[in-house]
Amino acid sequence: MTGLTPLDWVAAQHDGILETLCQFAAISSVSTDPAYAAGMAEGAAFLADHMAWCGLENVVVAPTAGHPVVMGDWLHAEGQKTILIYGHYDVQPPDPVEKWQSPPFEPMLRDGRLYGRGVSDDKGPVIVALSAIAAFLRGAGKLPVNVKFLIEGEEEIGSAHLDAFVAEHAAALGADFVLSADGAMWRVDLPTVTVASRGLCALEVTVTGAAKDLHSGRHGGSVANPLQALSRLLASLHDETGAVAVAGFYDQVLVPSAAERATVQAIPFDEPAYLQAVGASEAAGEVGWSTLERNWLRPTLELNGIWGGYSGPGSKTVIPSEAHAKITCRLVPDQAPGSIRDCVETHLRRHCPPGVTLKVTQEPGGAQPSAIASDHSGLHLAMQVLEEIYGEPALQVRMGATIPIGGIFKHRLGLDTVFFSFSTADEDYHAPNEFFRISRLHDGLRAWIRYLTLLGQAA
Amino acid sequence: MTGLTPLDWVAAQHDGILETLCQFAAISSVSTDPAYAAGMAEGAAFLADHMAWCGLENVVVAPTAGHPVVMGDWLHAEGQKTILIYGHYDVQPPDPVEKWQSPPFEPMLRDGRLYGRGVSDDKGPVIVALSAIAAFLRGAGKLPVNVKFLIEGEEEIGSAHLDAFVAEHAAALGADFVLSADGAMWRVDLPTVTVASRGLCALEVTVTGAAKDLHSGRHGGSVANPLQALSRLLASLHDETGAVAVAGFYDQVLVPSAAERATVQAIPFDEPAYLQAVGASEAAGEVGWSTLERNWLRPTLELNGIWGGYSGPGSKTVIPSEAHAKITCRLVPDQAPGSIRDCVETHLRRHCPPGVTLKVTQEPGGAQPSAIASDHSGLHLAMQVLEEIYGEPALQVRMGATIPIGGIFKHRLGLDTVFFSFSTADEDYHAPNEFFRISRLHDGLRAWIRYLTLLGQAA
Repeated sequence: MTGLTPLDWVAAQHDGILETLCQFAAISSVSTDPAYAAGMAEGAAFLADHMAWCGLENVVVAPTAGHPVVMGDWLHAEGQKTILIYGHYDVQPPDPVEKWQSPPFEPMLRDGRLYGRGVSDDKGPVIVALSAIAAFLRGAGKLPVNVKFLIEGEEEIGSAHLDAFVAEHAAALGADFVLSADGAMWRVDLPTVTVASRGLCALEVTVTGAAKDLHSGRHGGSVANPLQALSRLLASLHDETGAVAVAGFYDQVLVPSAAERATVQAIPFDEPAYLQAVGASEAAGEVGWSTLERNWLRPTLELNGIWGGYSGPGSKTVIPSEAHAKITCRLVPDQAPGSIRDCVETHLRRHCPPGVTLKVTQEPGGAQPSAIASDHSGLHLAMQVLEEIYGEPALQVRMGATIPIGGIFKHRLGLDTVFFSFSTADEDYHAPNEFFRISRLHDGLRAWIRYLTLLGQAA
Repeated sequence: MTGLTPLDWVAAQHDGILETLCQFAAISSVSTDPAYAAGMAEGAAFLADHMAWCGLENVVVAPTAGHPVVMGDWLHAEGQKTILIYGHYDVQPPDPVEKWQSPPFEPMLRDGRLYGRGVSDDKGPVIVALSAIAAFLRGAGKLPVNVKFLIEGEEEIGSAHLDAFVAEHAAALGADFVLSADGAMWRVDLPTVTVASRGLCALEVTVTGAAKDLHSGRHGGSVANPLQALSRLLASLHDETGAVAVAGFYDQVLVPSAAERATVQAIPFDEPAYLQAVGASEAAGEVGWSTLERNWLRPTLELNGIWGGYSGPGSKTVIPSEAHAKITCRLVPDQAPGSIRDCVETHLRRHCPPGVTLKVTQEPGGAQPSAIASDHSGLHLAMQVLEEIYGEPALQVRMGATIPIGGIFKHRLGLDTVFFSFSTADEDYHAPNEFFRISRLHDGLRAWIRYLTLLGQAA
């Protein structure tokens, strides 16, 4: 097959690329739950095999204190730029499994979409990047630029060990900038590049009342009910205006300038269509900011899970011993994950009702909020390619979600990150029935091949 | 074996009675969860067989709109009183199963206690009552009084269909009063009779935000989080003083007289010992009332379960579509279950935060609070027998828990109910590791035989 142009190679390999993605997405590489340890190991091994097949060299499954990183490179484009290509092979848990129309780890094509856990976030985009590399290396035998791949296994749990790994391997990871296969595009009908993402930190709360579950008649009124205490405690985290009521939470927040707010307000955003798409009756949140501003420019504190007592059919007259909640905060510059966790823990301890004991567990790690300069050359090359592919100018947008690597690569390697993903924010990743548009697989292949080609010509 | 005195018969049958209880308690007759339908059917059949073996006549498993009632009688003591003996064969769910030291449906003897779901509530006390009957009928061939048995299968779900059943069979259920094998004694070290119990009503709440689970980064700040809305809503149900903040909740509450409060205050109650027994650091609840008053004289609103979002290991950055809670209220005279449910639903609808939709399900049925006159002759006979057995005067106490039958038998049959149970309130029914003291099995057998004997002599 050598001697083909990259686009010819892709055309010839059409079905094979999709089949590879299906094989990859059939692997249950869920990083957050130890029950999926075998799926994680299988995911890393599959990826390493495929990277070698694509023509990358020095492929290695490199251990970390958590799940391993899969690396490989091709460094024979003398005098050319070097890009560090990032992605992740771990996926979100499939829960609630019963809400999937087809099993989460049996990828299925329906209506021009591939359905399955991880197809959009981030296995589809990773296969796009690798297939673009294969199109050069297996087609023409060489790449126009030098590439290093770093595909991690802990993105869905906040890239907990990536920071230490990157610090340790800083010398080997040197590059001109990072090109990320992760970081879904904002909308399917608008070419965009992402210039900022929010940070993340997490805590878990346990409220304990009596040492054992109690009969709510025999004991109701005598001792504290942990569910009631937890509800009260969690309700105290926001005020009546929807703002976070935690002392110190907003202290480090950079207030957006009038120009920044104007830029966001100029972005075309059809709020009724958005609400219809997610199935919400109305927008909600902090008073005084538009919906897009709340999601892009403002930090949030979200409850991700609450549980305690009886949840089966019928009723059970119990005062449970324990009640639990999981909390995450999305952070904006210059909030730091550790100090925000401390603020939330202090608030929880200060507001815990009497009669119960409180345990707060700060999840280690977290992610810094991050941003790239709006005139970065790698960013503008991405905008140029998007305009070629989609026929309209690409907009610079922000991101409510978190990609911790922005902060890590900036801090540890001094590198900016250009997000060049072809998944889309509406593809139900982190929810049942995650999907990836097949058309975006093809757009992405063309775009990555064009980007690498133009980058080689820019030297 | 005929010709034996009842006590001789019991002595000879010692091991057999315990074995029968173990067989009965091994049946998973959980009424609230349809998954246990087979256990319910088996429980009713076992009970009917055993009632016939005890010498009762006209034994029948009588259908209701829910789980069946098991009945039987012996009506050959001409000129003597007739008592309607009540108990139940259904039990609480075993959850959380992992907290049991031995499997909930494999009854196990340890340290003079029988451990297993339902042994204390109410299978042990039912076997006490039936064995006392057998002691007369299989020992001497006759009873000193007439008896009718009504053992229901829905006590743990609020006796939902008993009211209609009793109304329909009112003519056949005529008696002088009800003697209940259910209604655990307050303390193991103090003989007591229960003269009042609280009523019960239940609701379930579902708060829905977006139509599907959302990524908390992509959407956090844009739309309402149902967990946050639910916490806020549930927190609004109580005020800062621990009182229920629902408009109308206290409107029908009969304020206890100074004499009633004095009687409760005179009851020996070692609060530190109580708190140690349940493993609570301190008492908690409505300001202005003692712990015993809050449990006996005051109504409560308790959260029995909350669930929504992710509760597995690690974190999942999700804004769930739905959040749920189960609520029960304990009622005192003259609160009515239906009107209190209405008050709570109205409060919930009035306080539901914006951006979510609220569904409130009122569990049908409920139980009236009930009380017996403190000079009732059947009650005083119980106090006399307890004093004989335990060597000290029996105290009249109230009950925080609910026994709906008090209200049903009073309303439908005009009968008072005397509670004569030998389980004890500390036996962890409705919690893991429920147990029944073997010594109380023997006390109960002596007491029931003595009670029936004295009742026959009183005619």
